[in-house]
Amino acid sequence: MTHQTHETVFTMEATPVKFGRGAASEAGWEAARLGMRRVILITDPHVARLPIVDDVAAQLRSVGIEVSVFDRSRVEPTLESLEEAVAFARAFNPDGFVSLGGGSSIDTAKVANLLLTHGGEILEYVNAPIGAGRKPTGPLLPHLAIPTTPGSGSEATTVAVLDLPELKVKTGISHRYLRPSQAIVDPELTRSAPSAVIASAGLDVVCHAAESYLSRPFDSRPQPKTPDERPPYQGSNPVADVWSSQALRYGGQYLRRAVADADDLEARGMMMLAATMAGVGFGSAGVHIPHSCAYPVAGLKHEYQAEGYPSPFIPHGFSVIVTAPAAFRFTYEAMPERHLQVAEWLTGRPIQDPGPDSLPDALIALMREVGAPSGLSELGYTEQDLPELVAGAVKQQRLLAVAPKTPSEADLEAILRASFENW
Amino acid sequence: MTHQTHETVFTMEATPVKFGRGAASEAGWEAARLGMRRVILITDPHVARLPIVDDVAAQLRSVGIEVSVFDRSRVEPTLESLEEAVAFARAFNPDGFVSLGGGSSIDTAKVANLLLTHGGEILEYVNAPIGAGRKPTGPLLPHLAIPTTPGSGSEATTVAVLDLPELKVKTGISHRYLRPSQAIVDPELTRSAPSAVIASAGLDVVCHAAESYLSRPFDSRPQPKTPDERPPYQGSNPVADVWSSQALRYGGQYLRRAVADADDLEARGMMMLAATMAGVGFGSAGVHIPHSCAYPVAGLKHEYQAEGYPSPFIPHGFSVIVTAPAAFRFTYEAMPERHLQVAEWLTGRPIQDPGPDSLPDALIALMREVGAPSGLSELGYTEQDLPELVAGAVKQQRLLAVAPKTPSEADLEAILRASFENW
Ligand SMILES: [Zn+2]
Ligand SMILES: [Zn+2]
Repeated sequence: MTHQTHETVFTMEATPVKFGRGAASEAGWEAARLGMRRVILITDPHVARLPIVDDVAAQLRSVGIEVSVFDRSRVEPTLESLEEAVAFARAFNPDGFVSLGGGSSIDTAKVANLLLTHGGEILEYVNAPIGAGRKPTGPLLPHLAIPTTPGSGSEATTVAVLDLPELKVKTGISHRYLRPSQAIVDPELTRSAPSAVIASAGLDVVCHAAESYLSRPFDSRPQPKTPDERPPYQGSNPVADVWSSQALRYGGQYLRRAVADADDLEARGMMMLAATMAGVGFGSAGVHIPHSCAYPVAGLKHEYQAEGYPSPFIPHGFSVIVTAPAAFRFTYEAMPERHLQVAEWLTGRPIQDPGPDSLPDALIALMREVGAPSGLSELGYTEQDLPELVAGAVKQQRLLAVAPKTPSEADLEAILRASFENW
Repeated sequence: MTHQTHETVFTMEATPVKFGRGAASEAGWEAARLGMRRVILITDPHVARLPIVDDVAAQLRSVGIEVSVFDRSRVEPTLESLEEAVAFARAFNPDGFVSLGGGSSIDTAKVANLLLTHGGEILEYVNAPIGAGRKPTGPLLPHLAIPTTPGSGSEATTVAVLDLPELKVKTGISHRYLRPSQAIVDPELTRSAPSAVIASAGLDVVCHAAESYLSRPFDSRPQPKTPDERPPYQGSNPVADVWSSQALRYGGQYLRRAVADADDLEARGMMMLAATMAGVGFGSAGVHIPHSCAYPVAGLKHEYQAEGYPSPFIPHGFSVIVTAPAAFRFTYEAMPERHLQVAEWLTGRPIQDPGPDSLPDALIALMREVGAPSGLSELGYTEQDLPELVAGAVKQQRLLAVAPKTPSEADLEAILRASFENW
């Protein structure tokens, strides 16, 4: 490895976070501090029925902020749902955004803020090759993000995910200016979340952290010609590793408890914190094979009925975790010690018989204990769907580029084939 | 502990960091990205003699930024030296600041930026009771901080330290808006630093991290009536702990090597990273007894001649570390397991005979190996100086408030008395 030809630099940026029970009661104070006078509060129809939305709106009004509520963000934002939010924002012309809900509400606020500030059409900003990858030339309006589920970590990332059902592809917009200005992470807000939501979200957190820690080291990339060409997903680095490792420890220690008992706010709180930490980590290092496969897995079939969800739907975390055991069995040989380290953090004890199965076994044990689907079969997929699943995963080259070992189409097919039934 | 009366919330904010060998070559690009068109480059007379200052100035000019160099920041900023920087800033009227040097240059830029943006006199903003504790009402101009020594972590903190020799007191200005907009941390810049500078700075990093990890837990404070009343030093919390623990591991692993060999850029780089990490940690949790004692220790006598420093002067890290063994022997009983954990991270191995001396012994071993002064005697102090040292330490109530066990004046005297000769 020579200094001239390999990357020597990584970057790290974290959303300022206010964390703790009752922190959401400071939403009005934070919005005022950020200089907001007229905001759109973005949420989804499900969260809109909870008292927290009225509570936050009342707080904002009590400090003299005008509020308009947009409660139609979609669980998987589509071009249409985002365009609706953009039109709403353009009509109201706010000077700031507050998002309250899952990753989709936070992502919807990111996109509405981007379009309101810099103009144009959504697709212009979507990552190439689907969009034109246009970059915003300056910061957006202030955005206060208040997650209600411990999962996406969107409050800490620069990414907004977007479903394009007609193209059968999920893609996104990513730029550092999309990162929210401030996050408020309040464990009390998770109390209403059903167990399956916590399970799926928590397994997503575990995958964010594991994929980040097991990504290609930043200094194995070629040096970019200019800082502009440095990719948003830079690969593992010493700072991202710190965040990922802590999220993995928390996932191993608290996820089972958080799923088992909605009133265990210590466990749900630590999973909220793990979600944010993992978001900071993967916002720098990146995610790869399980998330690449998750795009077609979540997008092609819609017949799985998870407990606690209103209609058939494959929750994001479940779409990710089902291929994780096979994916990490495949990547094991690229960095065996790191794989064993992840297994050790997840299980909280030294690994017996270390080998390629150690991490997959630890993940499968966790999946079973929190009631995850056993694999692609349970999600409704058969052998016949493999070509389309592979085709969807292959499209995610931006993610696959940070895998520690680059999978061919045949490798992806083998990983998906091994993921029909994990037990 | 009841939910109603104890603090339940902590906050965490980190400067965006670009880290790695050669990262300083991206200073022009970062300044342009931050929107700067006319900047003051703040440095000190020593750093001003190094090629890096001309290099950064040339980079800024090459992207069309007008540059004026202020090279008179003082190693320990005083009211006079800061006022000179403020006058310089007001005369040039920049739209951004670049600081290049030790913590004092970064701190000088913070203060010049504050006064240029919000007007008034420096003392108005200084922490009460010495100043009026005035708070800036909005963000400052962009500030790109480029540290050249692995120590203060000022690039990651909200604090500017200020020496008031006529009052025989060190104090500071602290507010979240003082945090730099972006840091560039480049291990190459440490190559010129003498061993004693690296030793002192590295021991400062170890103390920042140890004091943070061994501070009063955030949830043992009473709940503030409003978010405004939450102190900047909040006490230990799960996120600050992550940063502090990693800085302690790096300190134990790399400080000896970084001191022994100026060309060991891996070790010096990891100490740069440790300094920033510890800065993020103590920016949230806080520092306490050793830093309280350090203020009078550094301020009262000026006869110690450290190797590699141009004139007699007690480097900040040495002024801190000399009382750390006795301070942590005193605080041990408040949280024994955490003290042992710190000793384990510093030594990298399980502790034999765990007890109150475990951490002091680990610190003393490290001090000896990197050539630190053995205690207050070597720094020129005698028994007769104790009353004045105690009086100086007692003034730092803002810091002492986060100690895990509050020291009385008699306790501080005992700690200082035990610190004349650590071996
Ligand atoms: Zn995910
Ligand atoms: Zn210090």
